Amino acid sequence: MRLLGLDPGLRHTGWGVIEAAGNRLTHIANGVVHSDGKQALAVRLVALYRQLGVILDLYRPDEAAVEETFVNKNPSSTLKLGVARGVVLLAPAERGLLVAEYSANLVKKSVVGVGHADKAQVEMMVKRLLPNAGGGEDASDALAVAICHAHHATSRRLALAAAR
Amino acid sequence: MRLLGLDPGLRHTGWGVIEAAGNRLTHIANGVVHSDGKQALAVRLVALYRQLGVILDLYRPDEAAVEETFVNKNPSSTLKLGVARGVVLLAPAERGLLVAEYSANLVKKSVVGVGHADKAQVEMMVKRLLPNAGGGEDASDALAVAICHAHHATSRRLALAAAR
Repeated sequence: MRLLGLDPGLRHTGWGVIEAAGNRLTHIANGVVHSDGKQALAVRLVALYRQLGVILDLYRPDEAAVEETFVNKNPSSTLKLGVARGVVLLAPAERGLLVAEYSANLVKKSVVGVGHADKAQVEMMVKRLLPNAGGGEDASDALAVAICHAHHATSRRLALAAAR
Repeated sequence: MRLLGLDPGLRHTGWGVIEAAGNRLTHIANGVVHSDGKQALAVRLVALYRQLGVILDLYRPDEAAVEETFVNKNPSSTLKLGVARGVVLLAPAERGLLVAEYSANLVKKSVVGVGHADKAQVEMMVKRLLPNAGGGEDASDALAVAICHAHHATSRRLALAAAR
């Protein structure tokens, strides 16, 4: 089972691909796609969408997971995040992938064990779980979402198997 | 010059196509695309994106215009609007169209003459300018954005012509 985790943002969207076989997780690739702040909004969205398309075609994940956007107190930041998030959700869904969504707290809880872990703790645990993963906060958040999805997907399948 | 106006929303996105030849405007078509509130967010975005794709392929507009999203006081509504708006901006831009954005007040001002007109006034003026346009608030807002873009596109071209 190959999983794509996504951490949406208009300027930087982090992505990470892992493989999950039962409880065993393997790092495949990760990185960040960017859009140019000097371009018009619609042009920036096309840039994000196309770069995500390249990653989807290259790594062919089976499912995707996106971190739920933090609702900012600044409405115009919230709107910008929303716009990026729309395109980030669309790219894998348009290719027929299931796209799961997880709250930031659930992601932290499933990676670190507590819901209010800080960025550094998440990064450290991601590195421990996926020793081959590169650094960088954005990419580590994206891998954390993929790990969270792997855990939940495994529990879902075990629950389904037990119910049969 | 064929123009597509778009009024984004997650549940309903209004669209309207007009033709502009100098100051003469002609109504071509208008309508509303929907997404099913019972579906997952990513699935709803795919539905909006694909329906807009059909409209773009059918009417082949030269340019598009989108109303700037009203920033709601409720952050989660703002986020939803943003998500829909991302997909609505992406659909024409992905096909290489210029996508202009206008504030709601500028749209009203360019259609009714004042920036604080109400919905009924906008609808009445849209019907007067485009006698063949069908009814409905969502579609009338989308046609209003297209009319606003026609006015601004014409002034831009006149200014460019005068500068030569």
